[in-house]
Amino acid sequence: MNGPAGAPVAATRGPVRVVGTGLLGTSIGLGLRGLGVDVVLHDPSLTTVLLAQDVGAGRVATPDDQDVRLVVVAAPPDVTHDVVLAELEAFPDAVVTDVASVKGAVLDALRDAGADLSRYVGSHPMAGSERSGPTAARGDLFTGRPWVVVGSGESSSVAVLAVRDLVSDLGATPVMLDASTHDAAVALVSHVPQIAASLVAARLREADPAALDLAGQGLRDVTRIAASDPALWTSILAANADAVAPVLRALRDDLDAVVTALDGAASTGPWSAPPRGALGSVAAAIAAGNAGVARIPGKHGGVRTTYDVVTVLVPDQPGELARLLVEVGSAGINLEELQLEHAPHRAVGLASISVLRGLGGRLEDELRGRGWRLAG
Amino acid sequence: MNGPAGAPVAATRGPVRVVGTGLLGTSIGLGLRGLGVDVVLHDPSLTTVLLAQDVGAGRVATPDDQDVRLVVVAAPPDVTHDVVLAELEAFPDAVVTDVASVKGAVLDALRDAGADLSRYVGSHPMAGSERSGPTAARGDLFTGRPWVVVGSGESSSVAVLAVRDLVSDLGATPVMLDASTHDAAVALVSHVPQIAASLVAARLREADPAALDLAGQGLRDVTRIAASDPALWTSILAANADAVAPVLRALRDDLDAVVTALDGAASTGPWSAPPRGALGSVAAAIAAGNAGVARIPGKHGGVRTTYDVVTVLVPDQPGELARLLVEVGSAGINLEELQLEHAPHRAVGLASISVLRGLGGRLEDELRGRGWRLAG
Repeated sequence: MNGPAGAPVAATRGPVRVVGTGLLGTSIGLGLRGLGVDVVLHDPSLTTVLLAQDVGAGRVATPDDQDVRLVVVAAPPDVTHDVVLAELEAFPDAVVTDVASVKGAVLDALRDAGADLSRYVGSHPMAGSERSGPTAARGDLFTGRPWVVVGSGESSSVAVLAVRDLVSDLGATPVMLDASTHDAAVALVSHVPQIAASLVAARLREADPAALDLAGQGLRDVTRIAASDPALWTSILAANADAVAPVLRALRDDLDAVVTALDGAASTGPWSAPPRGALGSVAAAIAAGNAGVARIPGKHGGVRTTYDVVTVLVPDQPGELARLLVEVGSAGINLEELQLEHAPHRAVGLASISVLRGLGGRLEDELRGRGWRLAG
Repeated sequence: MNGPAGAPVAATRGPVRVVGTGLLGTSIGLGLRGLGVDVVLHDPSLTTVLLAQDVGAGRVATPDDQDVRLVVVAAPPDVTHDVVLAELEAFPDAVVTDVASVKGAVLDALRDAGADLSRYVGSHPMAGSERSGPTAARGDLFTGRPWVVVGSGESSSVAVLAVRDLVSDLGATPVMLDASTHDAAVALVSHVPQIAASLVAARLREADPAALDLAGQGLRDVTRIAASDPALWTSILAANADAVAPVLRALRDDLDAVVTALDGAASTGPWSAPPRGALGSVAAAIAAGNAGVARIPGKHGGVRTTYDVVTVLVPDQPGELARLLVEVGSAGINLEELQLEHAPHRAVGLASISVLRGLGGRLEDELRGRGWRLAG
C-alpha cells in the first residue's frame, strides 16, 4: 500500500514482537521495517537474534518492550504451541499469531492448556526457500504468495483483523480457512507430495550411474523437493499425522493394486495377455492421475490450459536466452511458461517455451527462420 | 554432420523403411529426409501413413521397395516384437531396429520365436512429446537427447554400427547398454516416477478447491507427468513389469514404515514424543531422498550444483521477461536455470532465476536497483 506521497503505509501498528528469527521470522521483521513498523526481536539463540538485527529486521527485545500489540511466533512446529502459550501470558494485551505449517495440533494443545484463545489466530505463509536462517531472509519473501489465516471459534474479530492486516502488509494474499481444512489441504498439496518425492528419490541411491545419465525432466521434476530438510519435515509430518496418514493409506492401496497387476504381468510374461482386470487397475491408476492433475489451477488461478511446447537449443552464454525471448516477443507471441534445462554432457541449454495451443507451429517457423535450432 | 559445402551428410544409407508413422516414426523419417536419405513409410493405417508422407517424412512403401537396408519399427510396445519378426523375415538383408521403451521383453520374444538376431539391434530414444501422431512429428525431436542402443550377444557389429549411425545422424547421443541394464534404468528414472506422480495426482480428485488454491511449485513439479496417456503407459509398465515391480515393492516397504510411524504419532498426539524409533523412520525416509536426489546429474552431466534462486515479479506482457533477462545478462551474471510460473489469481509471472551459489545477493541488488520487484 502506498500513501499520498508514494511512501508505503502499513495497516499494522507496532511494536510487533517476532519470536524466532530464522528465515520466516527475520523476513517478517524485514518486511515490517520496510514499512516503518517498530519490530522487536527475540530468539533463544543470541547469535541468531543479533544476526537478524544486523540484517535490519528490527531491534533486539529488552525487558522494557512491554507495549507489544502483535506477537508473531516463528518457532519450529514442535515447540510452537509452548511458545505461543508463553507469549499470550507474557503479553496479556497483545494478539498472538504463529506461522507453523500445521494448525490443528497447535490449536488443540493451546485449548488443552487453557490459553486465552480470543487473542490467538494461527497462520501459515505458503512461502519458503531452500535456504534457512536470518541471512537468507528477505522482506519480499511473501509477495504474491497465499498466506492462510486460521481463526478459531474463540478468536476475536480484532485479533483476526490484526493478522489479516499483517499478511496484507507483507504483500501476501490472505486465505481464510479453519484449522482442519488447512491441515487436510496441506496434507494433499504439500506433505504427501513431499513423501512421494522422497521415496522415489530414495530408490536412486543404489542406481547404476548409466541409469542416472538417462534421467530426463520427468525425474527431475518428481524428485526436486526430495532435497528438503529431514528434521524439519519429520516435525511437520508428525504434527499433521492425523491428516497425512489417511491420504498415504489410500495412496498405498492404489500402489498395492498396481504392484499386484505388475506381478501378474511379470509371471505370465508381458505378451501373454494377463487377466484384463489386472492391467485394468494400472490403466485406472494412470487415468485417475490424469483426472487429479487436471484439477490443479493453472495460470491466473483459471482452468489449467494445455500449451504447445517449443524447445530451442540455446548456447550457454550470457545474453543468448534473452535474445531468444526478445525474438519470441517480436513475433507477437506471448510466452505462457518457460523451462530451461541443460542437455547432459553438452554446453547448451534447452529452453522449453509454452505458448497457447495452436501457436506452436508458427513460433517454430519464426524461430527456425531466425536461425535457432529446435530440439525434442 | 556437414559436408565440404556445409550440406548435411548422413552416415545412414537408404532406403530406410519406417514401420509405424506416429510421432516417433514420422520424426525419424523427417530427420532422415532432411539429410537426403531415401525413406519408405508403412503403417497399418492408410490415413496415418498418408499424413506422414504429406508432412515430408518419406514416401509410402510399395511392393517394389525390396532393397531396404535398415528397418525402423516404431510400433506400440506390445506389438513391437511381432512387427520386428515380420520385418526380419520380409527383408532378409536388412538390419532391423525398434524404438520401444522396453527392451528385454522384445528381445526375449524374438529369441523365443527363433528370429535372426544377428540383424536385430533394439534402441530407445529418450525423447517424446505431450502430443502424438504424425502431425506432431519434428525432424529435430531427438537433437541433444540420449538414445539407448541395445545390442544382444548375437548382434553383428555391422548391425550395431548401422543403428549407432542412425542415432548420430538424427542428432542424438548413442548410449550403449544391454537390455537388462536399460530396463532397470528406465524403471528407476521413468516408470516408477510415472506411477508415483499418478498416485499423488489421483489423491487430488476429491480435494477441496480451497486446498488446490494452496498448490505451489512443489505439487506442480511432482505431478506434471501425471497427465500421460493411460493406454500407452499400461503397455509400457506391463512390458517392463519384471524391472518395475521390485522397485515399487521396495518403495512400498518404505511407505509402510512412514505410515506406521505417522499412525503412532497420530495415536499418541503430536506433542507426546512418540517412540523415537518410529519418527526416526520418517526422518530416514526424507534423508534417503536427499541422498538419492543428489545423485541425479546436473548441468552438463556434472555434479548437481546448488544454486542461489532469485524470484522476480514479471508483468504478464510480451517482452517483459526478455527485458529482465537482458538486464541479468548485462549485470554479467550467467543464468543457470530459469522457471516461470504464474501467481494464482494475478496477472503477473514469477520468474525464478538460478545463479551460481554466492551470486544471488548481487543479482538481487542489481535487479532492485533497476526497479524490479522481487518475490518469495
